[in-house]
Amino acid sequence: MDSLFQHKSIRKFTGKAVAAGDLDLILRAAAQASNTGNMQWYSIIVTTDAAIKQELCSRAHFNQQMVVQAPVVLTFCADLQRFTQWCNQNNAEPEYDNFLSFYTATIDATIAAQNACIAAETLGLGICYLGTTNYNAQHIIDILQLPELVVPVTTVVLGYAAENAPLTGRLPMRAVVHRERYQKFSEQEITGIYKAREEESQQFVTENSVENLAQVFTKKRYPGKNNRAFSEALLGVIGGQGFNV
Amino acid sequence: MDSLFQHKSIRKFTGKAVAAGDLDLILRAAAQASNTGNMQWYSIIVTTDAAIKQELCSRAHFNQQMVVQAPVVLTFCADLQRFTQWCNQNNAEPEYDNFLSFYTATIDATIAAQNACIAAETLGLGICYLGTTNYNAQHIIDILQLPELVVPVTTVVLGYAAENAPLTGRLPMRAVVHRERYQKFSEQEITGIYKAREEESQQFVTENSVENLAQVFTKKRYPGKNNRAFSEALLGVIGGQGFNV
Repeated sequence: MDSLFQHKSIRKFTGKAVAAGDLDLILRAAAQASNTGNMQWYSIIVTTDAAIKQELCSRAHFNQQMVVQAPVVLTFCADLQRFTQWCNQNNAEPEYDNFLSFYTATIDATIAAQNACIAAETLGLGICYLGTTNYNAQHIIDILQLPELVVPVTTVVLGYAAENAPLTGRLPMRAVVHRERYQKFSEQEITGIYKAREEESQQFVTENSVENLAQVFTKKRYPGKNNRAFSEALLGVIGGQGFNV
Repeated sequence: MDSLFQHKSIRKFTGKAVAAGDLDLILRAAAQASNTGNMQWYSIIVTTDAAIKQELCSRAHFNQQMVVQAPVVLTFCADLQRFTQWCNQNNAEPEYDNFLSFYTATIDATIAAQNACIAAETLGLGICYLGTTNYNAQHIIDILQLPELVVPVTTVVLGYAAENAPLTGRLPMRAVVHRERYQKFSEQEITGIYKAREEESQQFVTENSVENLAQVFTKKRYPGKNNRAFSEALLGVIGGQGFNV
């Protein structure tokens, strides 16, 4: 339980390797997670090779150095390939090239990823998720040689922390929890919910020369132009891997 | 760590309520999870009201009685509504009505869900994920009054176990873990990977009057006709909630 509350993303790692037994435990924890119909529609690609990490880093993950520094990079994939192959070998007609199956596999891959992260943190390792996985999925597919019906969903880097990252704050619980039914927020409530976050993030507003924190997101970090371009690319990748979307 | 390896889905619950303090801890564990840009693009709807649980059970979750029996039902939603509202109030132009943002929010909602599950299991509670959430998303939207840019992703029921469910087996680790790059399996390898699962599942083959376990999935549990119909419905719901897909 403590691990859950002490989570902080780690982006700088020492050179210390992850013991094979610990990595094995992390992967087995991932595989023990809940999954739809116990079909395990996911795969985990374990990258420790320096050259492949460098390729992933520069081509897929916007050159974020943690991908090279971290001793282990785990790419969690939605995987309908293995299951489909098994069905084909058993006179069973697999029809899992659709959006629902892909989406289900995405959820299962993510649940497995979070189990891996919690296991890693319990073992004293630091982790960080990489959202860039969905921006540059085609490069990951090429580098890791993912076949048809396999799509990368998220990437986790892990290793021993070389930084003392602070615990990051979260919105007040009333922002994310709704009792019985969804209650839309009034303008005043929205202001209250984001107040502390805005106060603690003044530095980003100054650095980015924008008016406020919301503009840091809309103008700098996640602008519409990028969102639309990456959406189109991602849908193209999902379709290119054989899913009807 | 033990919780991760002792996980088993619980589908029968005693009438014992979940203490408010425990539920609070579970929800706070969910909110502490990793999320993209610390934007928390998700919401959790907590349902404890018997009438609303009954509605969710009969209209959305194929009448699975655990939805009524469980003292708490958590619906995890991708939520771009709150963030968009905040941007609009701050002279920032939110453009998060796209597939990437929705997909990112799905992943973040799922990570939060798994944290909630682990917290619950650590507290001695049992949980079960409901995949039916994605089959009947529109009903959930109607019942829980989810506004534009909010889509249910997964549902977790939780409470005290009234059954001693067995640990379910998983595929051998070589089936889900690939070292460095993806290695497609030979026909012989696929046979080996699924051998134990097939042996322990003979009962389902007999019950369903099919030739083998693969056919249990393709003919009975997840046939193509259903997959296609639910895919179309789900894409319709995502679009209907305001995302360009």
